[in-house]
Order: sequence, then structure tokens, then C-alpha cells
Amino acid sequence: MTTTLLTGIGSLVTNDPEIGEGPLGLITDAALVIEDDHIAWAGPAGRAPGTDTVSDVGGRAVVPGFVDSHAHLVFGGDRTQEFNARMSGRAYSAGGIRTTVAATRAATDEELSATVARYLAEALRQGTTTMETKSGYGLTTHDESRALRIASGHTDEVTYLGAHIVAPELAEDPAAYVELVTGEMLDACAPYAKWIDVFCEKGAFDGDQARAILTAGRAKGLVPRIHANQLSYGPGVQLGVELDAASADHCTHLTDADVDALAQGGTVATLLPGAEFSTRAQWPDARRLLDAGATVALSTDCNPGSSFTSSMPFCVALAVRDMGMTPDEAVWSATAGGARALRRTDVGRLSPGARADLAVLDAPSHVHLAYRPGVPLVIGVWRAGERVAG
Amino acid sequence: MTTTLLTGIGSLVTNDPEIGEGPLGLITDAALVIEDDHIAWAGPAGRAPGTDTVSDVGGRAVVPGFVDSHAHLVFGGDRTQEFNARMSGRAYSAGGIRTTVAATRAATDEELSATVARYLAEALRQGTTTMETKSGYGLTTHDESRALRIASGHTDEVTYLGAHIVAPELAEDPAAYVELVTGEMLDACAPYAKWIDVFCEKGAFDGDQARAILTAGRAKGLVPRIHANQLSYGPGVQLGVELDAASADHCTHLTDADVDALAQGGTVATLLPGAEFSTRAQWPDARRLLDAGATVALSTDCNPGSSFTSSMPFCVALAVRDMGMTPDEAVWSATAGGARALRRTDVGRLSPGARADLAVLDAPSHVHLAYRPGVPLVIGVWRAGERVAG
Ligand SMILES: [Zn+2]
Ligand SMILES: [Zn+2]
Repeated sequence: MTTTLLTGIGSLVTNDPEIGEGPLGLITDAALVIEDDHIAWAGPAGRAPGTDTVSDVGGRAVVPGFVDSHAHLVFGGDRTQEFNARMSGRAYSAGGIRTTVAATRAATDEELSATVARYLAEALRQGTTTMETKSGYGLTTHDESRALRIASGHTDEVTYLGAHIVAPELAEDPAAYVELVTGEMLDACAPYAKWIDVFCEKGAFDGDQARAILTAGRAKGLVPRIHANQLSYGPGVQLGVELDAASADHCTHLTDADVDALAQGGTVATLLPGAEFSTRAQWPDARRLLDAGATVALSTDCNPGSSFTSSMPFCVALAVRDMGMTPDEAVWSATAGGARALRRTDVGRLSPGARADLAVLDAPSHVHLAYRPGVPLVIGVWRAGERVAG
Repeated sequence: MTTTLLTGIGSLVTNDPEIGEGPLGLITDAALVIEDDHIAWAGPAGRAPGTDTVSDVGGRAVVPGFVDSHAHLVFGGDRTQEFNARMSGRAYSAGGIRTTVAATRAATDEELSATVARYLAEALRQGTTTMETKSGYGLTTHDESRALRIASGHTDEVTYLGAHIVAPELAEDPAAYVELVTGEMLDACAPYAKWIDVFCEKGAFDGDQARAILTAGRAKGLVPRIHANQLSYGPGVQLGVELDAASADHCTHLTDADVDALAQGGTVATLLPGAEFSTRAQWPDARRLLDAGATVALSTDCNPGSSFTSSMPFCVALAVRDMGMTPDEAVWSATAGGARALRRTDVGRLSPGARADLAVLDAPSHVHLAYRPGVPLVIGVWRAGERVAG
């Protein structure tokens, strides 16, 4: 057993109201004791116990490592030209998700694995110590199970999203594709995944299809999550709550009944401001959800089509600027909120028993994540008790 | 004389239409020859001449170092609580610029110098190789000249902004403050500065006062620039063009006559999206200015009150998302545009004779600065031929 004292913490976000102030469990002039891979103690620096080694962060702020509960990292190719054309007002015969499906199928295992590793490492340098990733660019039994097998080599939070869109080959027979996704493909994918997800949206899967898909996944031991109400009103959010999905993601177009369902149920509302940023779409209204009592998470949606950011600090800044969140709420949602969306109690907080996952900011306060937008403030990252960046 | 070949450049922005494609002077599969502190050659990698040493950037994109022509780095204190209150919808008796004036006056020379150095270094790591900075938080002869003397120890682009607001001591007698700014204070400040600036806005200085201030500065050898039309319509932009100011900065509220003046005159329109981001204000319309034929620059406005970002990549992403610029235009404005706003021909481009100031991106194209918002893509920085970061 080795113990390290991290001290000189100007401001510490623990997300534990029992040991610090407010919902963030803030402690100023704080210290942490890291014992092997977990937090053994957190409190005022003056009361810290003795340890084997001491590391002083010089008055900087420390926050729990970000928990990014929604990303699509198993992909081939990129969509630079499509993005450039869209943002330049030029016509472009974009294939959308299909473009990435073709490139993903054409990629080797090694290429896909390197891509997942690359973006996880990029996110880690920016303070993300837990990151989910999905399949959804394979859309055949072979390519979906391959994607999940590769993803599971890099992260524990793996989601089967065979139901991203109807596979191009079955575009004329969506019922057959749902049968595949809930049958043979599910059987091949379930061993590698923890979660099942569906894109419930006009042009993708309707409420009945989404219900069939999530129910089938649940029968195989996968826990539901859902892409819901992103581009239009729809049944996704209420279906997610009804099926006790861990999270309903996007939540841009919500009726009062949708908001009520999220506030009453056990499903987290995960907002993905990078998607609205990069597609110039309407912002989700975080304020409305928070005021109603819903639990809100923030995530990047990192993917090459609609949100190619891996930066949780950027999402925090957008949430404050454009979604009505306070800096405190946004930081909570990017850490503890993400943990709730993944039903994890060991991450997203810095109190005894938690995994020692944290980010050191080149700033005196977590508020600077919103106050200093775009600036790479994360200068040190620890995961499971080891310094992994900075 | 030492020569270095920078090769393996997947995509090179030269900003020289004579040696590459389009306004960005793009060259794919490119190389650069750096001779001492300047660029000696730029072109296709296959035609590169021999050099002493070779450095391969592995297919990554290279852009000219960013030229940030508008920042306020000589300040004391910070305004975290004011920002937090504003973004949390809480009342806060904010002193605005006055808060920073009091903290700046109270700071030691060493503290102010360390602050300027800190933010210049932070910006440099993000690819900014030329950065202007202003006084404007001293507002006495002693404190303004002190700020400029300190700034001039760190950057060549120093701007006298005694006319930021009327000094609190003379709030009841603005005419006396204008007399000070154009008299004794100007005499004390001129030796340290290259530029003179004024905040022409309701509550700060009106058109007549701004004209007197810029004219007095010009008589002492300083070149005018102006904070114009940020919060409301006003005379600033047309005054700037009339006095041949190098740049009119902000340009958020423009009449057609203002746009015409910028399009016809020699004054660059410098847009500062960080300010609109952090104050939730209306975006300037870059598209309208570009379509009219004006020269547009992008800059951070880095300051602790209204825009505490030092990130030019972040400004590029905002300009594309919210101000109607194409990714190509935004990258041009953040490099060549900034150079125009500082009347520099040696920076903002990567063609023979230019200073060897450049940023290497962890991406195949400059488009990724907008496509991957918030991600710290700058992984190598060279200034005057030396690798200074990454
Ligand atoms: Zn998604
Ligand atoms: Zn300014």
C-alpha cells in the first residue's frame, strides 16, 4: 500500500455535500490522500494525515476527473469536407452517418483500435478519466461486434448501438433490420457491451422499434440508454423513463410531460452541447430541466459527423453560456452527472472510497472552466491513483 | 546561418496566394525551409532544397502563428466572483473595469510583469506568436506609464489605452480626464507604446473626446486604433476610418454607412467573439463585413472582465459557428487578418521573408480548428525559427 498526499489545493470539488460546501462539496485550502487507486481521505489541508509522499499543486483547483458518458469513437475516416461545406454554405452531397459507416467497414481492426485509443488519450489529457463509447457505424453483425470487441479493449463503458440508423442494405426493409438488431446481431454483441442504445428519431427508429430494441437488449443483460428528442419532439424520452434507461441523451425538444417524466423517473437527462454547437442547432434548455428537478449530465457526443470535440471543459463553457446552467451546475453535471448517467458510484466524486480520478486546473477555481473558455486549463490528470498526464 | 527543413506537412496555410491555392495559399504535402529566424522557402515537399536539419511533422497541418491584435494583459486581481454571479443569475455589486483598476494599482511591478508573462506564455502554447497588449487599468499618469513600461518588456505591440474609462477620481469631470490623457499622461506613455486606443462608447468616451485623444496620440507618433461600436451604435467606426486607424475593434453594432466606411477605408474590422461569448451578447456579423469587402481580423480581447480567453482556436470556432465565417476565412482572419490590424507584413504568413512563426496542429487540416472546437490541437509552436512549445 502506498499513500500520497495531494496538498496545496486552492479549491477542491468533491461532489460530496457531506464533506464540503454545497452540492459540489467544495473545500478551500484542501488536501486529498490517495491510497493505491482510491481516495482515502479528503479535507482541509491543515488536518491531513501523514503519507508516504507529498505532492503540492500550488493553490490550484482540483476537480473529479470528467465522466463523459456519450461518445462514438469506433469510426473510420473523417468528415472534414462535409463540415467545411456545411459551415461555408456550399452544397455537398453528404452521406451523413452512411459516410462513416462505409469508412468504418473498410477500416482494419488495427486502424479502429488506434482511433479509439487516440481519442481516449486526447480526452484524458483534457481531464476525462471515464469515457463511454458506442458502436453504430458497422450495422452488420460482423462490424458491430467487431466495433464492440475493439472498444471493450479500451474502456469498460461500452454501448451496443446497432440501432444507430437502418443499415443501408436494408433501407427498404427496416423491420428486417430491427429483427437483425434484436436477434443475431444482439447475440454477437452482448458479450462485449454493458449498455444498449437506440437513436429514436424521425428517419431512424420510431417508438415501437425503439421499445423492441431496448427490451430485447435488456433481456440479454444490457442496460438501456437512448438517443431521444434530439432533432424533434418524439416518444424517446418517455420511453426511456418507462424502461428505466440510465440516460436519455440530447433532450433538445421536450414537452412539459417529457420534463416531468425525467424529473420523476430514474433516468438522467444527458445534454450534448457540442452537437448543437457544430450543427448550429437549437440549444437544449438545461435550466428548465434543473428547475423541474431532473438530474442533468453533460457529455461530448464525440463523433466525426455532428460533434467532433473531446473536450468536457468546452462543454461546460457552452452549458453555462447557452443552456442556462451555473458554473457550479455545469461542473457537477460533467463529473457527478456523468457518473449517474453511467450508474457509477466510484467515479465523479473525490471522497473516501472513490477511485482516485482527478484533474488539476491551472486556475484557482473550477469556475474558470467557464470563465476561461477554450483555454486548456487541465494541467495534470490522475487516474486510479496514477499520474497519467501533465 | 542554420537551415531547417520542416517537412511532412499534410496541409500548409501560407496566406500567400502566389505560392498556394486560394486566399490561404494552401499547399498540400508541403515543406518549409526555416533559415535562422525567417522562412526561406515554402512549397511542395518533393521540391524542397537541402538543409542542415530535417524535422517531419507526420502529415499534420501547419498554419502561421496566430496574431492576436487585441488583449488587455496588464491587470491585477481577477473577477471570478463577478463572472460566477453573472452566469448564475445572482445579484453582485460589480465594479466592472473599476474593480480591475483598483487591483492593478495595488499590484507590484513584479506581479504585473508576471501576469503579462503568464498569459503571453499561455497564448503561445496555443499557437499565438504575436500578441498585442494594452494599458487601461491604471488611469493615472504613474499607473498607465508603469503598465506600458512593463508590457513593453514582453511584447513589441503595446497600446496606450489611458482612455479606457474616465478615471474614478475624475468621474465628475471627464473633460479634465481627457486633458490628462492627451497631455501629461500621453507624454509619459508615448515612449513605451506604438499605438493609441480609446473606448468610444456610451459611458466611456464620445466621438469628440475620442477624436481629441487619437489626434493627440498621433501627434506624438502613436498610431490610432479604436474600441468602436461594441455595445451600441456610435461614431467610433467612422471616426476610426477617418483618422486612418489601423483597426476598429468589436464592430458589433454597425449601420450600413459603418460597413461601407470599413469596406472603403484602410481600417481593419477586428472582431472579438470571446467578449460576446462571455457576456452573452449579440454576435458581430462577420459575413456582412466580408461580403461588403472589409478586411476582418479575429482576436481574443483577453481580459479578466469580459473575455478571459487566450485561445485563438476558440475564437476561430466561434467565428465559424456564430458569425458566419467559413473555416478558411476565420483562419485567415486569425493570422493574416491580425497582422493587417497591426500593420505587420512580417507575420501572419508563411512565405519567403516572413518571420518563422508557426503552429503545428494535431490534425490533417486547418479546418479542424473549427471542426474540433475546444480541443487543444496546437501541439508544436515555432517563433522566429525556434521551437518554443510542444
Ligand atoms: Zn450520439
Ligand atoms: Zn478591449
